[in-house]
Amino acid sequence: MQLDRLCIVLVSVRNPLNIGAVARAASNFGFSQLRVVQPYEKAFREARSAVGASELLAEAKEFATVADAVADCSLVVGTTAANHRELHQRLTRLEQGAKLIRKAVATSRVALLFGSERFGLSNSDLTHCQWIIRIPTREEHGSMNLGQAVAICLYELIRNPIQKSSLVKTKVAPASQQERLTQYLFEALQRSGYIKRGAGPSAEDKLRRLVRRLKINQADVETLQGMVRQIIWKIQSLD
Amino acid sequence: MQLDRLCIVLVSVRNPLNIGAVARAASNFGFSQLRVVQPYEKAFREARSAVGASELLAEAKEFATVADAVADCSLVVGTTAANHRELHQRLTRLEQGAKLIRKAVATSRVALLFGSERFGLSNSDLTHCQWIIRIPTREEHGSMNLGQAVAICLYELIRNPIQKSSLVKTKVAPASQQERLTQYLFEALQRSGYIKRGAGPSAEDKLRRLVRRLKINQADVETLQGMVRQIIWKIQSLD
Repeated sequence: MQLDRLCIVLVSVRNPLNIGAVARAASNFGFSQLRVVQPYEKAFREARSAVGASELLAEAKEFATVADAVADCSLVVGTTAANHRELHQRLTRLEQGAKLIRKAVATSRVALLFGSERFGLSNSDLTHCQWIIRIPTREEHGSMNLGQAVAICLYELIRNPIQKSSLVKTKVAPASQQERLTQYLFEALQRSGYIKRGAGPSAEDKLRRLVRRLKINQADVETLQGMVRQIIWKIQSLD
Repeated sequence: MQLDRLCIVLVSVRNPLNIGAVARAASNFGFSQLRVVQPYEKAFREARSAVGASELLAEAKEFATVADAVADCSLVVGTTAANHRELHQRLTRLEQGAKLIRKAVATSRVALLFGSERFGLSNSDLTHCQWIIRIPTREEHGSMNLGQAVAICLYELIRNPIQKSSLVKTKVAPASQQERLTQYLFEALQRSGYIKRGAGPSAEDKLRRLVRRLKINQADVETLQGMVRQIIWKIQSLD
Protein backbone atom coordinates (compact mmCIF):
# COMPACT_ATOMS: atom_id res chain seq x y z
CA MET A 1 0.00 0.00 0.00
CA GLN A 2 1.22 3.48 -0.92
CA LEU A 3 0.97 4.93 2.56
CA ASP A 4 2.17 8.37 1.52
CA ARG A 5 -0.78 8.71 -0.84
CA LEU A 6 -3.18 8.86 2.10
CA CYS A 7 -3.71 12.34 3.55
CA ILE A 8 -5.04 12.40 7.09
CA VAL A 9 -7.07 15.62 7.30
CA LEU A 10 -8.06 17.00 10.71
CA VAL A 11 -10.85 19.57 10.51
CA SER A 12 -11.22 22.18 13.29
CA VAL A 13 -9.49 20.05 15.90
CA ARG A 14 -9.00 21.86 19.20
CA ASN A 15 -6.97 19.71 21.59
CA PRO A 16 -3.17 19.66 21.14
CA LEU A 17 -2.98 16.26 22.86
CA ASN A 18 -5.28 14.86 20.20
CA ILE A 19 -3.22 16.32 17.36
CA GLY A 20 -0.14 14.78 18.95
CA ALA A 21 -1.90 11.42 19.36
CA VAL A 22 -2.95 11.44 15.70
CA ALA A 23 0.62 12.16 14.61
CA ARG A 24 1.91 9.34 16.81
CA ALA A 25 -0.54 6.79 15.42
CA ALA A 26 0.28 7.89 11.87
CA SER A 27 3.96 7.32 12.58
CA ASN A 28 3.28 3.96 14.28
CA PHE A 29 1.64 2.67 11.12
CA GLY A 30 3.89 4.38 8.59
CA PHE A 31 1.68 7.18 7.27
CA SER A 32 3.32 10.54 6.67
CA GLN A 33 0.81 13.04 5.28
CA LEU A 34 -1.01 15.08 7.90
CA ARG A 35 -3.11 18.12 7.03
CA VAL A 36 -5.06 20.40 9.33
CA VAL A 37 -7.96 22.67 8.42
CA GLN A 38 -8.63 25.72 10.58
CA PRO A 39 -6.95 24.32 13.65
CA TYR A 40 -7.40 26.17 16.89
CA GLU A 41 -4.12 28.09 16.47
CA LYS A 42 -2.89 27.73 20.01
CA ALA A 43 -3.53 23.98 20.00
CA PHE A 44 -1.66 23.50 16.76
CA ARG A 45 1.33 25.50 17.99
CA GLU A 46 1.36 23.63 21.29
CA ALA A 47 1.15 20.26 19.57
CA ARG A 48 4.02 21.13 17.26
CA SER A 49 6.25 22.35 20.04
CA ALA A 50 5.50 19.49 22.45
CA VAL A 51 8.46 17.44 23.66
CA GLY A 52 8.93 14.52 21.28
CA ALA A 53 6.70 16.06 18.62
CA SER A 54 7.36 14.22 15.42
CA GLU A 55 8.77 15.34 12.12
CA LEU A 56 5.41 14.39 10.71
CA LEU A 57 3.74 17.04 12.86
CA ALA A 58 6.37 19.62 11.95
CA GLU A 59 5.62 18.98 8.30
CA ALA A 60 1.84 19.00 8.68
CA LYS A 61 0.29 21.44 6.24
CA GLU A 62 -2.32 23.96 7.27
CA PHE A 63 -5.33 24.90 5.12
CA ALA A 64 -8.08 27.48 5.38
CA THR A 65 -10.84 25.31 3.96
CA VAL A 66 -11.69 21.65 3.45
CA ALA A 67 -11.81 22.30 -0.31
CA ASP A 68 -8.18 23.48 -0.26
CA ALA A 69 -7.05 20.59 1.91
CA VAL A 70 -8.48 17.93 -0.42
CA ALA A 71 -7.91 19.71 -3.73
CA ASP A 72 -5.26 17.27 -5.00
CA CYS A 73 -7.13 14.12 -3.87
CA SER A 74 -9.17 11.93 -6.21
CA LEU A 75 -11.09 10.25 -3.42
CA VAL A 76 -12.32 12.08 -0.33
CA VAL A 77 -13.73 10.00 2.52
CA GLY A 78 -15.35 11.24 5.73
CA THR A 79 -15.51 9.45 9.06
CA THR A 80 -18.12 9.18 11.79
CA ALA A 81 -18.64 7.08 14.87
CA ALA A 82 -22.25 8.20 15.29
CA ASN A 83 -25.28 6.23 14.26
CA HIS A 84 -28.11 8.68 14.53
CA ARG A 85 -26.89 11.35 12.22
CA GLU A 86 -28.87 12.42 9.22
CA LEU A 87 -26.43 11.66 6.49
CA HIS A 88 -26.87 12.52 2.86
CA GLN A 89 -23.87 10.52 1.78
CA ARG A 90 -23.50 6.81 1.52
CA LEU A 91 -22.16 5.18 4.66
CA THR A 92 -20.02 2.06 4.89
CA ARG A 93 -18.44 0.25 7.78
CA LEU A 94 -14.73 0.73 8.28
CA GLU A 95 -13.92 -2.89 7.38
CA GLN A 96 -15.29 -2.36 3.86
CA GLY A 97 -14.36 1.27 3.47
CA ALA A 98 -10.71 0.49 4.15
CA LYS A 99 -10.72 -2.00 1.28
CA LEU A 100 -11.94 0.67 -1.10
CA ILE A 101 -9.33 3.13 0.14
CA ARG A 102 -6.55 0.57 -0.30
CA LYS A 103 -7.68 0.09 -3.88
CA ALA A 104 -7.83 3.84 -4.51
CA VAL A 105 -4.37 4.70 -3.15
CA ALA A 106 -2.89 2.24 -5.62
CA THR A 107 -3.51 4.83 -8.33
CA SER A 108 -4.15 8.20 -6.72
CA ARG A 109 -4.20 10.39 -3.66
CA VAL A 110 -6.91 9.87 -1.03
CA ALA A 111 -8.06 12.20 1.77
CA LEU A 112 -9.45 10.76 5.00
CA LEU A 113 -11.27 13.42 7.02
CA PHE A 114 -11.76 13.56 10.79
CA GLY A 115 -13.83 16.23 12.52
CA SER A 116 -13.53 18.12 15.77
CA GLU A 117 -13.60 16.37 19.13
CA ARG A 118 -17.01 17.71 20.05
CA PHE A 119 -18.98 17.79 16.84
CA GLY A 120 -17.22 15.59 14.34
CA LEU A 121 -17.43 16.62 10.70
CA SER A 122 -20.11 19.18 9.86
CA ASN A 123 -22.68 18.54 7.16
CA SER A 124 -20.85 21.11 5.06
CA ASP A 125 -17.51 19.28 5.56
CA LEU A 126 -19.23 16.06 4.51
CA THR A 127 -20.39 17.48 1.16
CA HIS A 128 -16.76 17.21 0.05
CA CYS A 129 -16.80 13.46 0.66
CA GLN A 130 -17.72 10.80 -1.88
CA TRP A 131 -18.75 8.54 0.98
CA ILE A 132 -18.39 8.11 4.71
CA ILE A 133 -16.80 5.48 6.88
CA ARG A 134 -18.47 4.45 10.10
CA ILE A 135 -16.36 3.01 12.89
CA PRO A 136 -18.53 0.20 14.30
CA THR A 137 -19.04 1.48 17.83
CA ARG A 138 -22.20 0.51 19.69
CA GLU A 139 -25.29 2.64 19.47
CA GLU A 140 -25.47 3.51 23.18
CA HIS A 141 -21.99 5.04 23.18
CA GLY A 142 -20.87 5.86 19.68
CA SER A 143 -18.72 8.93 20.11
CA MET A 144 -15.02 8.09 20.10
CA ASN A 145 -11.89 9.82 21.29
CA LEU A 146 -10.29 11.40 18.19
CA GLY A 147 -6.83 9.89 18.67
CA GLN A 148 -8.34 6.44 19.09
CA ALA A 149 -10.64 6.85 16.07
CA VAL A 150 -7.71 7.80 13.83
CA ALA A 151 -5.55 4.98 15.21
CA ILE A 152 -8.27 2.42 14.47
CA CYS A 153 -8.82 3.66 10.91
CA LEU A 154 -5.09 3.60 10.15
CA TYR A 155 -4.74 0.15 11.70
CA GLU A 156 -7.57 -1.18 9.56
CA LEU A 157 -5.80 0.21 6.48
CA ILE A 158 -2.53 -1.58 7.21
CA ARG A 159 -3.89 -4.77 8.80
CA ASN A 160 -2.96 -7.91 7.02
CA PRO A 161 -5.66 -10.56 7.07
CA ILE A 162 -3.64 -13.25 5.34
CA GLN A 163 -0.75 -13.05 7.77
CA LYS A 164 -0.13 -16.53 9.06
CA SER A 165 -0.14 -17.02 12.77
CA SER A 166 3.26 -17.48 14.30
CA LEU A 167 1.53 -19.50 17.00
CA VAL A 168 2.63 -22.63 15.20
CA LYS A 169 1.84 -25.69 17.16
CA THR A 170 4.88 -26.46 19.26
CA LYS A 171 6.46 -29.74 18.36
CA VAL A 172 5.71 -32.22 21.08
CA ALA A 173 8.68 -34.26 22.35
CA PRO A 174 8.94 -37.86 21.10
CA ALA A 175 6.94 -40.49 22.96
CA SER A 176 10.12 -42.07 24.35
CA GLN A 177 10.97 -38.80 26.13
CA GLN A 178 7.45 -38.40 27.45
CA GLU A 179 7.56 -41.96 28.69
CA ARG A 180 10.91 -41.43 30.43
CA LEU A 181 9.43 -38.43 32.25
CA THR A 182 6.39 -40.50 33.15
CA GLN A 183 8.62 -43.18 34.68
CA TYR A 184 10.66 -40.66 36.67
CA LEU A 185 7.45 -39.04 37.91
CA PHE A 186 6.01 -42.41 38.81
CA GLU A 187 9.08 -43.24 40.82
CA ALA A 188 9.06 -39.87 42.58
CA LEU A 189 5.40 -40.20 43.44
CA GLN A 190 5.92 -43.72 44.80
CA ARG A 191 8.93 -42.66 46.86
CA SER A 192 7.05 -39.65 48.20
CA GLY A 193 4.10 -41.82 49.18
CA TYR A 194 1.65 -40.12 46.77
CA ILE A 195 1.26 -43.44 44.96
CA LYS A 196 1.21 -46.48 47.23
CA ARG A 197 3.59 -49.37 46.40
CA GLY A 198 1.54 -52.05 44.69
CA ALA A 199 -1.10 -49.55 43.61
CA GLY A 200 -1.46 -51.40 40.35
CA PRO A 201 -1.38 -50.26 36.77
CA SER A 202 -4.30 -47.81 36.92
CA ALA A 203 -2.26 -45.19 38.83
CA GLU A 204 0.51 -45.39 36.25
CA ASP A 205 -1.99 -45.17 33.41
CA LYS A 206 -3.56 -42.05 34.85
CA LEU A 207 -0.14 -40.48 35.19
CA ARG A 208 0.78 -41.38 31.61
CA ARG A 209 -2.40 -39.83 30.24
CA LEU A 210 -1.77 -36.70 32.29
CA VAL A 211 1.75 -36.32 30.91
CA ARG A 212 0.53 -36.85 27.33
CA ARG A 213 -2.15 -34.18 27.74
CA LEU A 214 0.55 -31.61 28.58
CA LYS A 215 2.03 -31.85 25.06
CA ILE A 216 5.47 -31.03 26.41
CA ASN A 217 8.11 -29.98 23.90
CA GLN A 218 11.64 -31.39 23.68
CA ALA A 219 13.41 -28.72 25.75
CA ASP A 220 10.78 -28.70 28.48
CA VAL A 221 10.64 -32.48 28.75
CA GLU A 222 14.37 -32.58 29.42
CA THR A 223 14.10 -29.83 32.03
CA LEU A 224 11.26 -31.65 33.77
CA GLN A 225 13.16 -34.95 33.73
CA GLY A 226 16.08 -33.19 35.40
CA MET A 227 13.79 -31.72 38.07
CA VAL A 228 12.16 -35.00 38.89
CA ARG A 229 15.46 -36.92 38.94
CA GLN A 230 16.81 -34.41 41.42
CA ILE A 231 13.73 -34.89 43.61
CA ILE A 232 14.18 -38.68 43.45
CA TRP A 233 17.85 -38.31 44.38
CA LYS A 234 16.95 -36.10 47.34
CA ILE A 235 14.35 -38.51 48.70
CA GLN A 236 16.77 -41.45 48.24
CA SER A 237 19.49 -39.61 50.09
CA LEU A 238 17.15 -38.95 53.00
CA ASP A 239 15.79 -42.47 53.20
CA MET B 1 -19.02 -12.74 21.07
CA GLN B 2 -19.36 -12.80 24.86
CA LEU B 3 -17.87 -9.36 25.43
CA ASP B 4 -18.24 -9.53 29.21
CA ARG B 5 -15.97 -12.58 29.31
CA LEU B 6 -13.00 -10.46 28.25
CA CYS B 7 -11.15 -8.78 31.11
CA ILE B 8 -9.05 -5.80 30.11
CA VAL B 9 -6.17 -5.74 32.61
CA LEU B 10 -4.04 -2.61 32.98
CA VAL B 11 -0.77 -3.25 34.78
CA SER B 12 1.01 -0.37 36.57
CA VAL B 13 -0.58 2.31 34.45
CA ARG B 14 0.29 5.83 35.59
CA ASN B 15 -1.64 8.40 33.53
CA PRO B 16 -5.28 9.07 34.49
CA LEU B 17 -6.03 10.28 30.96
CA ASN B 18 -4.94 6.90 29.64
CA ILE B 19 -7.10 5.00 32.11
CA GLY B 20 -10.02 7.18 31.06
CA ALA B 21 -9.27 6.62 27.38
CA VAL B 22 -9.17 2.85 27.90
CA ALA B 23 -12.55 2.94 29.68
CA ARG B 24 -14.02 5.00 26.86
CA ALA B 25 -12.83 2.65 24.13
CA ALA B 26 -14.12 -0.33 26.12
CA SER B 27 -17.52 1.32 26.32
CA ASN B 28 -17.47 2.28 22.62
CA PHE B 29 -17.07 -1.35 21.66
CA GLY B 30 -19.28 -2.88 24.36
CA PHE B 31 -16.73 -4.38 26.75
CA SER B 32 -17.42 -4.03 30.46
CA GLN B 33 -14.70 -5.72 32.50
CA LEU B 34 -11.80 -3.49 33.45
CA ARG B 35 -9.19 -4.52 36.00
CA VAL B 36 -6.17 -2.60 37.21
CA VAL B 37 -3.04 -3.99 38.84
CA GLN B 38 -1.03 -1.70 41.12
CA PRO B 39 -2.23 1.49 39.55
CA TYR B 40 -0.51 4.70 40.52
CA GLU B 41 -3.06 5.51 43.23
CA LYS B 42 -3.44 9.16 42.44
CA ALA B 43 -3.97 8.46 38.74
CA PHE B 44 -6.62 5.86 39.42
CA ARG B 45 -8.51 8.16 41.79
CA GLU B 46 -8.30 11.04 39.32
CA ALA B 47 -9.49 8.90 36.43
CA ARG B 48 -12.46 7.65 38.43
CA SER B 49 -13.48 11.10 39.55
CA ALA B 50 -13.04 12.77 36.14
CA VAL B 51 -16.09 14.48 34.67
CA GLY B 52 -17.94 11.96 32.52
CA ALA B 53 -16.07 9.01 33.99
CA SER B 54 -18.00 5.92 33.12
CA GLU B 55 -19.77 3.36 35.20
CA LEU B 56 -17.27 0.93 33.75
CA LEU B 57 -14.46 2.83 35.43
CA ALA B 58 -16.35 3.09 38.70
CA GLU B 59 -16.72 -0.68 38.68
CA ALA B 60 -13.12 -1.40 37.68
CA LYS B 61 -11.55 -3.83 40.14
CA GLU B 62 -8.16 -3.25 41.68
CA PHE B 63 -5.62 -6.03 42.29
CA ALA B 64 -2.26 -6.23 44.03
CA THR B 65 -0.68 -8.67 41.59
CA VAL B 66 -1.08 -9.89 38.03
CA ALA B 67 -1.68 -13.39 39.41
CA ASP B 68 -4.67 -12.15 41.40
CA ALA B 69 -6.06 -10.17 38.48
CA VAL B 70 -6.06 -13.15 36.11
CA ALA B 71 -6.87 -15.88 38.63
CA ASP B 72 -10.33 -16.65 37.21
CA CYS B 73 -9.25 -16.54 33.54
CA SER B 74 -8.55 -19.64 31.46
CA LEU B 75 -6.59 -17.80 28.81
CA VAL B 76 -4.17 -14.97 29.61
CA VAL B 77 -2.78 -12.95 26.70
CA GLY B 78 -0.14 -10.22 26.82
CA THR B 79 0.29 -7.35 24.38
CA THR B 80 3.28 -5.56 22.92
CA ALA B 81 3.90 -3.09 20.14
CA ALA B 82 7.66 -3.55 20.28
CA ASN B 83 9.67 -5.66 17.90
CA HIS B 84 13.06 -5.89 19.49
CA ARG B 85 12.15 -7.34 22.81
CA GLU B 86 13.57 -10.60 23.96
CA LEU B 87 10.42 -12.61 24.39
CA HIS B 88 10.23 -16.04 25.86
CA GLN B 89 6.61 -16.51 24.91
CA ARG B 90 5.12 -17.16 21.55
CA LEU B 91 4.15 -14.03 19.66
CA THR B 92 1.32 -13.62 17.17
CA ARG B 93 0.03 -10.66 15.23
CA LEU B 94 -3.15 -9.05 16.47
CA GLU B 95 -5.17 -10.17 13.44
CA GLN B 96 -4.59 -13.81 14.34
CA GLY B 97 -4.50 -13.42 18.10
CA ALA B 98 -7.95 -11.83 18.08
CA LYS B 99 -9.35 -14.89 16.31
CA LEU B 100 -8.01 -17.15 19.05
CA ILE B 101 -9.42 -14.89 21.76
CA ARG B 102 -12.84 -14.85 20.10
CA LYS B 103 -12.78 -18.63 20.11
CA ALA B 104 -11.73 -18.77 23.76
CA VAL B 105 -14.37 -16.36 25.13
CA ALA B 106 -17.04 -18.62 23.67
CA THR B 107 -16.36 -20.99 26.55
CA SER B 108 -14.41 -19.19 29.25
CA ARG B 109 -12.98 -16.00 30.67
CA VAL B 110 -9.99 -14.38 28.97
CA ALA B 111 -7.58 -11.73 30.31
CA LEU B 112 -5.92 -9.27 27.92
CA LEU B 113 -2.98 -7.51 29.58
CA PHE B 114 -1.59 -4.07 28.81
CA GLY B 115 1.54 -2.67 30.47
CA SER B 116 2.58 0.76 31.65
CA GLU B 117 2.95 3.69 29.26
CA ARG B 118 6.71 3.76 29.51
CA PHE B 119 7.79 0.18 29.80
CA GLY B 120 4.91 -1.99 28.66
CA LEU B 121 4.53 -5.36 30.37
CA SER B 122 7.55 -6.58 32.31
CA ASN B 123 9.10 -9.97 31.65
CA SER B 124 7.65 -11.06 34.96
CA ASP B 125 4.15 -9.90 33.94
CA LEU B 126 4.54 -11.82 30.70
CA THR B 127 5.23 -15.13 32.47
CA HIS B 128 1.51 -15.18 33.33
CA CYS B 129 0.61 -15.14 29.64
CA GLN B 130 0.09 -18.18 27.42
CA TRP B 131 1.09 -16.07 24.43
CA ILE B 132 1.52 -12.48 23.33
CA ILE B 133 -0.20 -10.33 20.77
CA ARG B 134 1.83 -7.89 18.71
CA ILE B 135 0.14 -4.84 17.26
CA PRO B 136 1.67 -4.52 13.79
CA THR B 137 3.38 -1.14 14.15
CA ARG B 138 6.46 -0.43 12.06
CA GLU B 139 9.88 -1.23 13.39
CA GLU B 140 11.20 2.35 13.39
CA HIS B 141 8.43 3.56 15.68
CA GLY B 142 6.77 0.69 17.46
CA SER B 143 5.77 2.12 20.79
CA MET B 144 2.11 3.08 20.90
CA ASN B 145 -0.01 5.33 23.04
CA LEU B 146 -1.78 3.08 25.58
CA GLY B 147 -5.31 4.32 24.88
CA GLN B 148 -4.81 3.82 21.16
CA ALA B 149 -3.30 0.37 21.62
CA VAL B 150 -6.27 -0.80 23.69
CA ALA B 151 -8.76 0.75 21.26
CA ILE B 152 -7.16 -1.07 18.33
CA CYS B 153 -7.14 -4.44 20.12
CA LEU B 154 -10.80 -4.10 21.12
CA TYR B 155 -11.75 -2.99 17.62
CA GLU B 156 -10.03 -6.04 16.13
CA LEU B 157 -12.00 -8.24 18.51
CA ILE B 158 -15.38 -6.86 17.44
CA ARG B 159 -14.66 -6.17 13.77
CA ASN B 160 -16.86 -8.02 11.36
CA PRO B 161 -15.13 -9.12 8.20
CA ILE B 162 -18.21 -10.54 6.51
CA GLN B 163 -20.23 -7.37 6.91
CA LYS B 164 -21.48 -6.44 3.47
CA SER B 165 -20.70 -2.99 2.24
CA SER B 166 -23.61 -0.62 2.30
CA LEU B 167 -21.95 1.12 -0.60
CA VAL B 168 -24.30 -0.71 -2.92
CA LYS B 169 -23.93 0.44 -6.44
CA THR B 170 -26.45 3.21 -6.92
CA LYS B 171 -29.05 2.32 -9.45
CA VAL B 172 -28.42 4.30 -12.58
CA ALA B 173 -31.43 6.06 -14.10
CA PRO B 174 -33.01 4.40 -17.16
CA ALA B 175 -31.45 5.18 -20.53
CA SER B 176 -34.50 7.18 -21.58
CA GLN B 177 -33.96 9.61 -18.72
CA GLN B 178 -30.27 9.88 -19.43
CA GLU B 179 -31.06 10.54 -23.07
CA ARG B 180 -33.59 13.24 -22.17
CA LEU B 181 -30.93 14.97 -20.07
CA THR B 182 -28.49 14.62 -22.95
CA GLN B 183 -30.93 16.32 -25.31
CA TYR B 184 -31.63 19.17 -22.90
CA LEU B 185 -27.91 19.66 -22.42
CA PHE B 186 -27.31 19.57 -26.13
CA GLU B 187 -29.92 22.25 -26.66
CA ALA B 188 -28.52 24.42 -23.85
CA LEU B 189 -25.01 24.09 -25.22
CA GLN B 190 -26.16 25.00 -28.71
CA ARG B 191 -28.14 27.99 -27.48
CA SER B 192 -25.23 29.15 -25.37
CA GLY B 193 -22.88 28.87 -28.33
CA TYR B 194 -20.71 26.16 -26.77
CA ILE B 195 -21.72 23.83 -29.58
CA LYS B 196 -22.01 25.50 -32.96
CA ARG B 197 -25.23 24.97 -34.97
CA GLY B 198 -24.51 22.36 -37.59
CA ALA B 199 -21.61 20.95 -35.59
CA GLY B 200 -22.58 17.48 -36.70
CA PRO B 201 -23.20 14.30 -34.80
CA SER B 202 -19.74 13.97 -33.20
CA ALA B 203 -20.44 16.75 -30.68
CA GLU B 204 -23.68 15.10 -29.65
CA ASP B 205 -21.98 11.71 -29.39
CA LYS B 206 -19.29 13.10 -27.13
CA LEU B 207 -21.94 14.63 -24.91
CA ARG B 208 -23.91 11.38 -24.76
CA ARG B 209 -20.83 9.41 -23.71
CA LEU B 210 -20.04 12.00 -21.06
CA VAL B 211 -23.54 11.78 -19.57
CA ARG B 212 -23.42 7.97 -19.54
CA ARG B 213 -20.06 8.00 -17.72
CA LEU B 214 -21.64 9.97 -14.87
CA LYS B 215 -23.91 7.03 -13.95
CA ILE B 216 -26.56 9.42 -12.68
CA ASN B 217 -29.32 7.99 -10.51
CA GLN B 218 -33.05 8.59 -10.98
CA ALA B 219 -33.41 11.46 -8.50
CA ASP B 220 -30.32 13.28 -9.72
CA VAL B 221 -31.20 12.92 -13.40
CA GLU B 222 -34.53 14.64 -12.78
CA THR B 223 -32.87 17.44 -10.81
CA LEU B 224 -30.33 17.96 -13.57
CA GLN B 225 -33.03 17.97 -16.26
CA GLY B 226 -34.84 20.69 -14.30
CA MET B 227 -31.65 22.75 -14.01
CA VAL B 228 -30.88 22.55 -17.71
CA ARG B 229 -34.47 23.28 -18.77
CA GLN B 230 -34.39 26.40 -16.63
CA ILE B 231 -31.16 27.49 -18.30
CA ILE B 232 -32.70 26.88 -21.74
CA TRP B 233 -35.77 28.90 -20.75
CA LYS B 234 -33.58 31.76 -19.51
CA ILE B 235 -31.55 31.90 -22.73
CA GLN B 236 -34.74 31.73 -24.84
CA SER B 237 -36.29 34.58 -22.89
CA LEU B 238 -33.24 36.75 -23.46
CA ASP B 239 -32.87 35.95 -27.16
